[in-house]
Amino acid sequence: MGMPLEVNTMIVTKGKEKRIEGNFFELQKEGYRIYPIDVPVEVRTTKESETNGIAVPSKLIWENNTTIITYELVSLNSSN
Amino acid sequence: MGMPLEVNTMIVTKGKEKRIEGNFFELQKEGYRIYPIDVPVEVRTTKESETNGIAVPSKLIWENNTTIITYELVSLNSSN
Amino acid sequence: MGMPLEVNTMIVTKGKEKRIEGNFFELQKEGYRIYPIDVPVEVRTTKESETNGIAVPSKLIWENNTTIITYELVSLNSSN
Amino acid sequence: MGMPLEVNTMIVTKGKEKRIEGNFFELQKEGYRIYPIDVPVEVRTTKESETNGIAVPSKLIWENNTTIITYELVSLNSSN
Repeated sequence: MGMPLEVNTMIVTKGKEKRIEGNFFELQKEGYRIYPIDVPVEVRTTKESETNGIAVPSKLIWENNTTIITYELVSLNSSN
Repeated sequence: MGMPLEVNTMIVTKGKEKRIEGNFFELQKEGYRIYPIDVPVEVRTTKESETNGIAVPSKLIWENNTTIITYELVSLNSSN
Repeated sequence: MGMPLEVNTMIVTKGKEKRIEGNFFELQKEGYRIYPIDVPVEVRTTKESETNGIAVPSKLIWENNTTIITYELVSLNSSN
Repeated sequence: MGMPLEVNTMIVTKGKEKRIEGNFFELQKEGYRIYPIDVPVEVRTTKESETNGIAVPSKLIWENNTTIITYELVSLNSSN
């Protein structure tokens, strides 16, 4: 009688993000995950990689043990 | 740098649910809310009313400070 | 960069609860778990057993991948 | 029948943290808040101030609409 979920403070794309339009991207992740909506977080390709930039999550969908997150990339790491 | 949300153990419809198909309903609520997916919870019309039945949340969408929950009504309160 | 946790809508004691004083009990569970504080939930000995009664969680401690919940038993199942 | 809480990706001390021992600090915040345990987060004095450093939350207590967080300061912002 419990629902497992994960609280995330960073978006790790593993290169699987899809551009929707402009700076908005969509990413599918396994399990139910909380990304703080309207709160800027780091985006990385892998957990250990450098920051790609900063994004603001704008939408979450939880269904079938999957999370679909939509986020807006608001700044790019200039060293990339 | 925080996201407010609410953990719910019951679905309170206020009569605003919409039937999608069969026993599946959709309900829009203000703010970001967690209803435990795949965990049976009570459905009531108001917080203080009798139970309408038991439902299993199957999908949550969080966007624009709104939660859209999809749930399947799995049993009806026979005393209703 | 994520913290796993579980949202619970019921207290399953497995007979491991300890009475602190009066109707207050303490229970240790593995992992980080949310029990809704100040919200009445069912208490059961096992997930499949009958309800023992209704409790109101009053305190949660998360540390070392363990949750300690304090709850007040507010009603007993009279059929027990 | 809901419990409000806040998901935090940063520790904002407002100068109210208390050193427990070594690099461990304790901080009391209003309301129920999730800080990701064992996940490094920024520490700031105010939401808008520069980073003081990086901390790892190790313990959370929720009671009486208050959160007490214990964290270990693992790196200091050298520009401070």
